[in-house]
Amino acid sequence: MIRTGFSAAGPTLAEVGEYEVIRAIRQAAPSALNGDDAAVFTPSVPNSRVVATTDMLVEGRHFTPEFTTPFDLGRKAVVQNFADVEAMGARPIAAVLALSAPGSTPLEVVRELAAGIQSKVGEYSCELVGGDVTSGEQLVLSLSAIGSLGGSLPPLRLAGARAGQRVVAHGNIGYSAAGLALLQSGAQIPTALYPLVHAYQCPQLTPGRGLIARAAGATAMTDNSDGLVRDVSALASQSNVLIDLYSAALAPDELLCAAGELLGEDPWAWVLTGGEDHTLVGTTEGDAPVGFRTIGSVRKGSGVLVDALEPAYTDGWESFL
Amino acid sequence: MIRTGFSAAGPTLAEVGEYEVIRAIRQAAPSALNGDDAAVFTPSVPNSRVVATTDMLVEGRHFTPEFTTPFDLGRKAVVQNFADVEAMGARPIAAVLALSAPGSTPLEVVRELAAGIQSKVGEYSCELVGGDVTSGEQLVLSLSAIGSLGGSLPPLRLAGARAGQRVVAHGNIGYSAAGLALLQSGAQIPTALYPLVHAYQCPQLTPGRGLIARAAGATAMTDNSDGLVRDVSALASQSNVLIDLYSAALAPDELLCAAGELLGEDPWAWVLTGGEDHTLVGTTEGDAPVGFRTIGSVRKGSGVLVDALEPAYTDGWESFL
Repeated sequence: MIRTGFSAAGPTLAEVGEYEVIRAIRQAAPSALNGDDAAVFTPSVPNSRVVATTDMLVEGRHFTPEFTTPFDLGRKAVVQNFADVEAMGARPIAAVLALSAPGSTPLEVVRELAAGIQSKVGEYSCELVGGDVTSGEQLVLSLSAIGSLGGSLPPLRLAGARAGQRVVAHGNIGYSAAGLALLQSGAQIPTALYPLVHAYQCPQLTPGRGLIARAAGATAMTDNSDGLVRDVSALASQSNVLIDLYSAALAPDELLCAAGELLGEDPWAWVLTGGEDHTLVGTTEGDAPVGFRTIGSVRKGSGVLVDALEPAYTDGWESFL
Repeated sequence: MIRTGFSAAGPTLAEVGEYEVIRAIRQAAPSALNGDDAAVFTPSVPNSRVVATTDMLVEGRHFTPEFTTPFDLGRKAVVQNFADVEAMGARPIAAVLALSAPGSTPLEVVRELAAGIQSKVGEYSCELVGGDVTSGEQLVLSLSAIGSLGGSLPPLRLAGARAGQRVVAHGNIGYSAAGLALLQSGAQIPTALYPLVHAYQCPQLTPGRGLIARAAGATAMTDNSDGLVRDVSALASQSNVLIDLYSAALAPDELLCAAGELLGEDPWAWVLTGGEDHTLVGTTEGDAPVGFRTIGSVRKGSGVLVDALEPAYTDGWESFL
């Protein structure tokens, strides 16, 4: 089933006031660490390094109520941030939320949002440990994640790829973009294609894959947030290498092909430029770590190719277009 | 001198694009830790606990270009967040910035903002280690701070105050609200009152005071962000105590009195309800720690009094009014 839409009923944020808004968030996403000036917590591993990242979701830019629910939006915000932590080979340990919303927003929207955040941080055994709420013209969801990097292995930096290594990926590529295209088309979406829509509404990412990759000898990693070619290009550029992707490993699957046929679009565009899957893409000396598959190889040179040729599509997310 | 206004000249964010926006921020606020999926850094103290907090500044709600500059706005965002870290008795170690702005915003505005952030994080020997930029209808500045709490002493929680202790404060109280009132009045502001305006544009907070207070035996702490009575009430309520403030210690100083006279307002309102000074206010068993002064006492009971009477003003910041 595809759920979309934001509740329009019940008391608004302006009606209940800041105190009740914070109470609703803390009820939906409880944490004993929340409620003070700042949250204080112990890293999961002694003497570990700290990892920090932030991602913002703006109404009308990153989401609209027509295509998602507050619950999925909350989940997506967590995945976006935690994927960045995992892409360093680290473990997410906490999140904080800054939220701006018009006073006319129903409290129920914020409650669902917090429930979505709770649902996803819970999958990682994490908590929402603090936040800030304020009025603003748009709904803006700014989540920051804190992670912990244990042990003495280096983090999985963009600059760690070396010629001769293998490119590996965990998770679907192109699903989120295809799901959004289906929603935007206004077409009747066949049940079989719901997984694409669900992937747009909240990308799938198995907790702990980045940690496993680092332990298994991965050398560099990123997540597919702005588009595969663009994100892999950043990795190639930072590492001063050329990355050659294998079309056979990336070829659109049945779902992507069916969606392409339905919409009259080339599913390769979703695969190469779609982004927002938050798939982990990295490099490794040896075999692909458990849960990862090989999608290319690292060579001397620069740029990104597909089967040694220029990719058919290369653009990606641009924040200020 | 009072500086206000946002640059309207030069290329816009939409004209230069996301890559250049990020480059400008990183040039103005450089960090070797920035530029990957997430930042990885070592806490200042081995085996320390992690501290996290977030605060959002929304255009038209928390600031307007008429009353501040992007530089001061960046500085203020840091102070707000770092005050929350200090209020736990911890040391700020890093900040991440999520920024939403209309595509029509001049790049220079973002550059100045980042320079302001750099100026303030530098005072704390910290760095801006990561971020996210996106378009949006309003300028929204969402900063998150990460801190480090070393040693085995507990953090300075709101719930730590006990009857018989002393209430102490570091920093001016009421200055920020008085400064904003001066700016909003449209009056010609005498040079002597510039410190009030500057306190509104960027509150003063000496780095390290929270750390010192914790080491010196403070038991609870918060910062004056929403209004003195409101913030102290939160501390009293969490600690199940009554806090009696001394009017002699809080009495408006010459500057506040002069501003009150100029505007025909009672400066006590700024002192008791103004907020945004980010003054550290806490409790301690013994003498006031260095840099702090005594402003009240903790007793059995509940609520906040001034000289054992109900405060003349008790309201404060409300996010959704």
